[in-house]
Amino acid sequence: MELKSYIRNIPDFPTKGVNYKDITPLLLDPDAMSLAVKLFMKQLPHTNIDKVVGIESRGFFFATLLAERLNAGFIPVRKPGKLPHSTHAEDYDLEYGSDTLEIHEDAIKRGEKVLLHDDVLATGGTAEATCRLIERCGGEIVQCNFLVELEFLKGAEKIKQYGVSSLIRYS
Amino acid sequence: MELKSYIRNIPDFPTKGVNYKDITPLLLDPDAMSLAVKLFMKQLPHTNIDKVVGIESRGFFFATLLAERLNAGFIPVRKPGKLPHSTHAEDYDLEYGSDTLEIHEDAIKRGEKVLLHDDVLATGGTAEATCRLIERCGGEIVQCNFLVELEFLKGAEKIKQYGVSSLIRYS
Repeated sequence: MELKSYIRNIPDFPTKGVNYKDITPLLLDPDAMSLAVKLFMKQLPHTNIDKVVGIESRGFFFATLLAERLNAGFIPVRKPGKLPHSTHAEDYDLEYGSDTLEIHEDAIKRGEKVLLHDDVLATGGTAEATCRLIERCGGEIVQCNFLVELEFLKGAEKIKQYGVSSLIRYS
Repeated sequence: MELKSYIRNIPDFPTKGVNYKDITPLLLDPDAMSLAVKLFMKQLPHTNIDKVVGIESRGFFFATLLAERLNAGFIPVRKPGKLPHSTHAEDYDLEYGSDTLEIHEDAIKRGEKVLLHDDVLATGGTAEATCRLIERCGGEIVQCNFLVELEFLKGAEKIKQYGVSSLIRYS
């Protein structure tokens, strides 16, 4: 089974010139989902993991599955104003302007080992901001993993010190 | 273990007078997560389930876990403009104004058995709109389940024909 065959290419979405990678066909297939989880697990460093962070909102799909498999807690990192308790916030740059991500301050205890997950690694801006959030909580990032990596956007360079792993790559 | 003890009450969030139920402490505890999945499974009707629909975005947390447990496909129902392929759309009423949810048209095959999941059942507007989406795709809803039910808002009445199940109730 080739996971890449479950990714649907959507030209000019959300804007002209962007070749969007639609992961929903993969989510529809329980065997493909289960293979992806297995491959993620295989590529993890051999260490105990306390928390899995998923980035809103497509990062939630696999982050909860990985948390369950690791017997770890799950933490959603969200857009501003969505998390109801005290948060840390970090900005990141977009092509035009910037955006913000938040984490609950009490989600991670100092020294806990944290896995970061998102569906797609593009320019790495959101992943990098999320790494800063995790570190502000005192967490130690053991890996950043992604279902899809758009290698030509070189996002991995921004977070390479944490270890980057991806299952489906486009170069 | 009492699941309700993992829900954090946030007064006046997101607006004055609303007592927000924060489920993130439950997500942080792998034992509580695992108990919730077990209880969801126990309350399902005894029938084969082909697809699990989760409503954006907190509905995604448990919908993927339930899909995995059921060996079913997972379908995200999302806010407008997020799903890249052909969609059905349904509006639902909010306290002031209305909003829209979308589903990929090809996510469900005619006659497939579908479980709907969301984190909180409040007035039932989003759940009802999602039921319409599932039926427009030709799906047969076997149950609507929720981590939290705010019984005083009577949302269950809107979707009672499908069977409603919830783990934590506030009356």
